[in-house]
Amino acid sequence: MAQKILIIGGVALGPKAACRAKRLDPTADITLIDQDSIISYGGCGIPYYVCGDVAEAEGLRSTSFHSLRDAVYFAREKGFTVRTGTRALKIDRQKKELLVKDLLSGQEEVLAYDKLVLATGSIPFVPPIPGVEADNIFTVSNIHQAVAIKKRLSSGQTGKAVILGGGAIGLEMAEAMADLWGAETTVVEMMDQILPRIIDRNIATMARHHLEEKGVIVHTSERAVAFTVENGRVTGVQTDKRHLDADLVILSAGVRPNSQLAREAGLAIGAFGGIVVNKRMQTSDPCIYAGGDCVEMEDLISGGSTYAPLGSLANRQGRVIGSNLTGRQETFDGVIGSFIIKLFDNCVAKTGLSLAAAKAQGFDALAAFVVQADKAHFYPDSGMLFMQMVVEKKSQRVLGVQGIGPNNGSLLARISAVAGMLKYKPAVQDIANLEFPYSPPYAAAMDIINVLANTAQNILEGRNMPIDQEEFLQRLADRQADHTLFLDVRAAAQGAPLAEKFGPHWLNIPNDQLRERLDELPADREIVLVCNAGSRSYDAMCILQNSGRSTLNLQGGIGGLKRAGIIL
Amino acid sequence: MAQKILIIGGVALGPKAACRAKRLDPTADITLIDQDSIISYGGCGIPYYVCGDVAEAEGLRSTSFHSLRDAVYFAREKGFTVRTGTRALKIDRQKKELLVKDLLSGQEEVLAYDKLVLATGSIPFVPPIPGVEADNIFTVSNIHQAVAIKKRLSSGQTGKAVILGGGAIGLEMAEAMADLWGAETTVVEMMDQILPRIIDRNIATMARHHLEEKGVIVHTSERAVAFTVENGRVTGVQTDKRHLDADLVILSAGVRPNSQLAREAGLAIGAFGGIVVNKRMQTSDPCIYAGGDCVEMEDLISGGSTYAPLGSLANRQGRVIGSNLTGRQETFDGVIGSFIIKLFDNCVAKTGLSLAAAKAQGFDALAAFVVQADKAHFYPDSGMLFMQMVVEKKSQRVLGVQGIGPNNGSLLARISAVAGMLKYKPAVQDIANLEFPYSPPYAAAMDIINVLANTAQNILEGRNMPIDQEEFLQRLADRQADHTLFLDVRAAAQGAPLAEKFGPHWLNIPNDQLRERLDELPADREIVLVCNAGSRSYDAMCILQNSGRSTLNLQGGIGGLKRAGIIL
Repeated sequence: MAQKILIIGGVALGPKAACRAKRLDPTADITLIDQDSIISYGGCGIPYYVCGDVAEAEGLRSTSFHSLRDAVYFAREKGFTVRTGTRALKIDRQKKELLVKDLLSGQEEVLAYDKLVLATGSIPFVPPIPGVEADNIFTVSNIHQAVAIKKRLSSGQTGKAVILGGGAIGLEMAEAMADLWGAETTVVEMMDQILPRIIDRNIATMARHHLEEKGVIVHTSERAVAFTVENGRVTGVQTDKRHLDADLVILSAGVRPNSQLAREAGLAIGAFGGIVVNKRMQTSDPCIYAGGDCVEMEDLISGGSTYAPLGSLANRQGRVIGSNLTGRQETFDGVIGSFIIKLFDNCVAKTGLSLAAAKAQGFDALAAFVVQADKAHFYPDSGMLFMQMVVEKKSQRVLGVQGIGPNNGSLLARISAVAGMLKYKPAVQDIANLEFPYSPPYAAAMDIINVLANTAQNILEGRNMPIDQEEFLQRLADRQADHTLFLDVRAAAQGAPLAEKFGPHWLNIPNDQLRERLDELPADREIVLVCNAGSRSYDAMCILQNSGRSTLNLQGGIGGLKRAGIIL
Repeated sequence: MAQKILIIGGVALGPKAACRAKRLDPTADITLIDQDSIISYGGCGIPYYVCGDVAEAEGLRSTSFHSLRDAVYFAREKGFTVRTGTRALKIDRQKKELLVKDLLSGQEEVLAYDKLVLATGSIPFVPPIPGVEADNIFTVSNIHQAVAIKKRLSSGQTGKAVILGGGAIGLEMAEAMADLWGAETTVVEMMDQILPRIIDRNIATMARHHLEEKGVIVHTSERAVAFTVENGRVTGVQTDKRHLDADLVILSAGVRPNSQLAREAGLAIGAFGGIVVNKRMQTSDPCIYAGGDCVEMEDLISGGSTYAPLGSLANRQGRVIGSNLTGRQETFDGVIGSFIIKLFDNCVAKTGLSLAAAKAQGFDALAAFVVQADKAHFYPDSGMLFMQMVVEKKSQRVLGVQGIGPNNGSLLARISAVAGMLKYKPAVQDIANLEFPYSPPYAAAMDIINVLANTAQNILEGRNMPIDQEEFLQRLADRQADHTLFLDVRAAAQGAPLAEKFGPHWLNIPNDQLRERLDELPADREIVLVCNAGSRSYDAMCILQNSGRSTLNLQGGIGGLKRAGIIL
């Protein structure tokens, strides 16, 4: 008899699992239910629909060949049944039955299954702030909200938008509103940086600077405490630091796994509130699979658990579930933590752990930061990449890379090169020799990804003694009190003005004169070396260390500071 | 006493090794000699200098901060001695001495060494064709030739250029000449495809089509047999098939390792004529290191030996040599085979082995070919990627990926993602779940790189029975004689015209009608399935296979044919 497969949830993983299972076993009897009327859409595309890049919401629901992915499509092209407007109420694991309710008729019904798939997704976190139920306050979790938001924007009702939460969705929505619609857009983030827990603060500062260049107002270390509401509509946001006028508010404070149904059925739930699954994507009941935003997975870097609600993971897990539903033994091993976001003309991306995340997971880690062009430096139109590699000190194991660069695929390429390797626990040396494809229009002969590894090695071995931007600026601010000497090894045209500005604290000796002018350097002062990108100052450090002096090297140099909006 | 390090060759590896060694051991006494007057240049940048993207030849010899890398630069900034115009004549390994000759004065001199580095590079192959010594026939192996070529072009003396050899350098030079200088440019390649031994013929055909779209004339399976010379200047090229007028000829028929000095010194030489080195980059004499274009290395995919003269490898090997010169134990494990080239608006790239190369190395391998957008399909301005994955059948091990796509970094990203993994011998499943960073402006939720692996798996397991473009066109040409039915599952707007054109041989049943129209299909004819990209036809195959019919699926669909310039 045909196997009965029942799938709850029809956005990303559900349809994927159904299609794969049906292809492998054309005799399978597959039904997918979803409480919404709209299924199988690219939720990650919502900001691009709101900003107008994708003209119609149907664009997010169509195939490459312009078929709308609705119940008829799945029945005719893929051979399985879709029931929309149908809510799952209760799983009876003993009887292998699911109680569902038709939301239109109110009718309840029991559906039998041999295998059940939970693709129940996530629920946006709605902060319990007074006034949050007012009109014009939106989360960004489905097409209906997207349509409502775009309607507000396109009807000219939105002059000022406030976005609560500076994570990926918040920033993508900020760009959408500020860019096409010209709304005065403010992002409010509780943590002390945007993209918290994703990238480190130095890279986040550069991303923030770019948002500000594009007119987005960013407030970090700040939280909303109340909404001002008039006639049921939001008119402002009161934070712990100020009042912000607002015609429209986006709540982008993260999502939580929608695991209630699983919890009530007695399935194992993990620390993040996500359904616990094994590598075959089975829950604690082997007849019930789960994947996508409602599960938590192994973090392949730390070995711990993590919650990574991403459409890409959902699709890949969906295929694994589809395979296993038909008796195969496929696995999804866990999560590396790859991330990418477009911010106006910039791209921010990472794979693996940030330094902060690595430390939080108990790794004794350090970071190497490098600034380099994305093409051979002599090739025209090259853009600058600002990248950081996170390394465990003792093992020299690479835990992650992250960066910011131009919006042209070049950062994606470097991040991807490492993303594929991370599960093999590469050491710094493995990435030093990584065979990144080389030709001047695409890379440097010694590419930034190799240089990152080389720099990390030099730091690990104590030859390159780094000082990061924050420390550097602190030392420079404290220059009257301490004895630090800032040694600028750039040409006089760049270094002399700062030597004049900072007087006895800043000395300019171009690198090509350093070997013969060592006597000018005091033996008793700590020297902070500065150049434009951090590489010539490393050369200088090798010379000076040999002369017994104590030195530190500004990672990323003056160019790195500029990228963060800091002009000395 | 300071260690004496002597380095022969100053283009890429030599200076890199010297800089690294000097940084690690500032007391080292390092001398680098080169017979040329110009050293430390980006040889891979020559086509971009010729085409004008890089205005001056000095651009290829300067640092990011516009310092010219000459003997003075290396002495003052890097602390080692450079002697140009100095040729190495003979190594006395017993005495650890090198006999050199000053080319200006003719004076010979003996230099002692503790460690010697051979960075003697490669020699362009000059085919022994009558007339090859004529004026205006150039190889592209150093700055002097580049300057001479550009002078000819910029003075308007070149209306017609012929390039002998359709490898990377030949094609880059073809673009340089045809694009900026508007020369009528013809590429003549002996083998039956361009980029032979690098990428497979299906991808090469697409690259060739793009070159032809841009006005470059390409002749494959053709070889030059004589040059026509008037007054010492070339005026034409006689091939085995035709006569080509030519004001300028580029010889780009590959390079050979320059290993003569090593050979005469009794060092081990390999099958490719390259110096044999271990993973520490030591020759058969442990006091003599070698790297870059003069050595051959282990191919990490096949375990055999390979010759890979690339500036990127030279730089990475140079750093390893620099480290080991000072007593460290670093390794360069071998070559993966990453490659990338810009061809006008396209990019062609690969890593690992092509299918042809894999078969030549004894692998029982197959290829999966996929066409997919480089961004989420709903995101605007997405470009199409045409990619192929090569897999060993028995082990499901991925041996390589290659492709052609827009010139925007998107192909580089997919190739790089696999380049880093290949040394770990990934299986198809590892790449199916590869965590390529996802956001609609940069990737698809199920990215082409994942789909390639999924497709390969479906082929390996016999669910997707592929037919490639060449076979397909053959079967279509033979349609009167055999019983093949071509089943086009696209919408009627696309499929009906071909059904009309090919009559009883071509049937159009859109995919969404297939399940209910199965009766229209004959049970006794082999069916070749066709859609636009090969994915809907795979869906159709799953339906048809279940009905017991024998089917084949056109890889890459009609879109793939179009990309190769074939309109049915």
